Amino acid sequence: MIVSDKMKDFVLNGSAIRAMFEEGGRMAKEFGKENVYDFSLGNPNTPAPAKIKEAILEILETEDPVLVHGYMNNSGYEDVRQAVADDLNKRFGTDYDAECITMTVGAAGGMNDVLKTLLNPGDEALTFAPFFAEYRSYVGNFDGVLVQVPSKPGTFQPDPEALAEAITERTKVLIINSPNNPTGVIYTEESLREVAKVLLAAQERIGHEIFIFSDEPYRELAYDGKEVPFIPNLYKNTIVGYSFSKSLSLPGERIGYVAIPKDINDFEAVSTAVKTANRILGSVNAPSLMQRVIMHCLDERPDLGFYDRNRKLLYDALTKDGFDVTYPDGAFYLWVRSPEPDEKAFVAKAKAHRILFVSGSGFGCPGYVRIAYCVSPEMIKRSLPSFEALAKDYGLL
Amino acid sequence: MIVSDKMKDFVLNGSAIRAMFEEGGRMAKEFGKENVYDFSLGNPNTPAPAKIKEAILEILETEDPVLVHGYMNNSGYEDVRQAVADDLNKRFGTDYDAECITMTVGAAGGMNDVLKTLLNPGDEALTFAPFFAEYRSYVGNFDGVLVQVPSKPGTFQPDPEALAEAITERTKVLIINSPNNPTGVIYTEESLREVAKVLLAAQERIGHEIFIFSDEPYRELAYDGKEVPFIPNLYKNTIVGYSFSKSLSLPGERIGYVAIPKDINDFEAVSTAVKTANRILGSVNAPSLMQRVIMHCLDERPDLGFYDRNRKLLYDALTKDGFDVTYPDGAFYLWVRSPEPDEKAFVAKAKAHRILFVSGSGFGCPGYVRIAYCVSPEMIKRSLPSFEALAKDYGLL
Repeated sequence: MIVSDKMKDFVLNGSAIRAMFEEGGRMAKEFGKENVYDFSLGNPNTPAPAKIKEAILEILETEDPVLVHGYMNNSGYEDVRQAVADDLNKRFGTDYDAECITMTVGAAGGMNDVLKTLLNPGDEALTFAPFFAEYRSYVGNFDGVLVQVPSKPGTFQPDPEALAEAITERTKVLIINSPNNPTGVIYTEESLREVAKVLLAAQERIGHEIFIFSDEPYRELAYDGKEVPFIPNLYKNTIVGYSFSKSLSLPGERIGYVAIPKDINDFEAVSTAVKTANRILGSVNAPSLMQRVIMHCLDERPDLGFYDRNRKLLYDALTKDGFDVTYPDGAFYLWVRSPEPDEKAFVAKAKAHRILFVSGSGFGCPGYVRIAYCVSPEMIKRSLPSFEALAKDYGLL
Repeated sequence: MIVSDKMKDFVLNGSAIRAMFEEGGRMAKEFGKENVYDFSLGNPNTPAPAKIKEAILEILETEDPVLVHGYMNNSGYEDVRQAVADDLNKRFGTDYDAECITMTVGAAGGMNDVLKTLLNPGDEALTFAPFFAEYRSYVGNFDGVLVQVPSKPGTFQPDPEALAEAITERTKVLIINSPNNPTGVIYTEESLREVAKVLLAAQERIGHEIFIFSDEPYRELAYDGKEVPFIPNLYKNTIVGYSFSKSLSLPGERIGYVAIPKDINDFEAVSTAVKTANRILGSVNAPSLMQRVIMHCLDERPDLGFYDRNRKLLYDALTKDGFDVTYPDGAFYLWVRSPEPDEKAFVAKAKAHRILFVSGSGFGCPGYVRIAYCVSPEMIKRSLPSFEALAKDYGLL
């Protein structure tokens, strides 16, 4: 067999989310697009802000094409990195500068850069379950071990005691994702302070740094006026990975950044390694035009109203149908307890009603499913009778 | 020390080309941009064709922004992949279809996808020296061993006997790069047929496939009416990695593709693995807007006249100065023998004249240097007295 052993495993454990997304495409062809309710993928269904198009046009009119489409430092254009640093400092009172920022092909690119930098084979990356399924692949890319730490039942907040138990001498990094995919939960400042306390004590004990990698594609998606704590202000050894995919509806463009605080030990070595990883993993640099575009759009925010209306519409309807739904503070997912123990059977039954959503097992949390509501409100409305029928199948209504 | 052992090595062996490029920036600040002659990086200094801007504007005016900036299949938009396949079939008489094509973040992204697919730790990737220095990192990413096979002295054509000697049971892939970086040599059809013969016999003997990965960023850059043979037509197990970086002056945009022929063994497994690697290595997919842009621009060709004039200007001048220059058929590099055995000393002496070019050691070929002439003709003209002075330092004039 031609394919390498590791890739065979990666393919076998392939993304269930992506498989469902492609199944949705096939079903749309079979039943008609209007009759399939695809809640599988975190693909924003609201257009990018008008400012994106304006910025592209302005850049093409006013800047040198050799600069706009050309190579730059592997960490990105210096003016873009400075603008990102300034924006973070203004919002969060931090003191980043251009040297701290590496522009990346989205948060996934950034996380790969950082994990390649930190992990020796066998080193452990921890994350609270449920967690974004792709972390398995990203950690596996560098022969690391992804250790799943349970979160608190019901609230899905970090469990500091479980964290303390999970840390070993091989622990190098804790991946945090808040607002969380798949639960929609925002980790509270109180929870995060407890996490920081555990990590500080553990660093002392095991004699080396434990970093937090804060995976922040959903930073701007918080509802009901909730604040998303900025983790570097609570724990020094925090590397932020940001993506403009969700906040500016640009997921296909692959644009994001990594921010490394200047006051970590070995800043120079770590930031050089992250930039080198960015170069050699294949991306070389983040896409150039989009780097320049986001420099014009750092003050843009997503259409929160759009997501909030979807959130309320679907949360209220599913709750009324009798489903057990975690109240979502952020992101654009509903986290729903399966009415039967095997949530894969629930996913299958929903598919019979032409509703597509994703099993919780992939997120390290069987018994639940994730429903992405970054879709058109019309599709949600059309889907409601099918959700009702599904509830009736389970005797919830 | 925080940084992983492998990354420490990657950083130590970091790109000499990139280091020189950044040195060029520093020197430009010190001496004035006009007084530094930077021939270090393959960064096209000719703007992208006007059609690129037109295509961007047309796409932004006529297509749905949710589609244009959104997620698609990890291998790329189906219509884009079909267009790429059709274009290859038209040009080379092949029979690719959309399933054969994966859109990637440039050729570097595609090569990482393919090497991740093929290499188990300890497997060997062969390449003819001199070769693009980054192959070391790309093969190292997957714990493969890069085996340097000498090319024929003087002509820098592949040496089939040396290739036959280098193949072992661990050989999985031969990386070919023609037109070649750094020599500018185009591998002849005759050479490549001999290479194919060696590989076919070796496959038979060792009992598994040996792929050619044909790294083709310079495909369209051939001068004097020379043809660049299309390797899949000479050897079935060839995977092409293409980039629009050089041909459309878009190196910062990170857009390219991988083409896998349908008639290889295990096509389905290999293409699924390549697409999966594209997803999990961090890029997720090639940048979406640029995918759609290149679909409009498959018939565009680089401004060959621009490069050809630079090539002749610099080749003639350096030859007249007494330097020993390989006649370049393609790409945009001059490959020059160092007038003293240690070419790093030559690089240092050139730098004293504020001429920057790159040592051949990084390309696996000490005693030579690479001079990239994808620069402005004005800079070349300004640099000529300094090259003359450098020649005089060596008593060549």
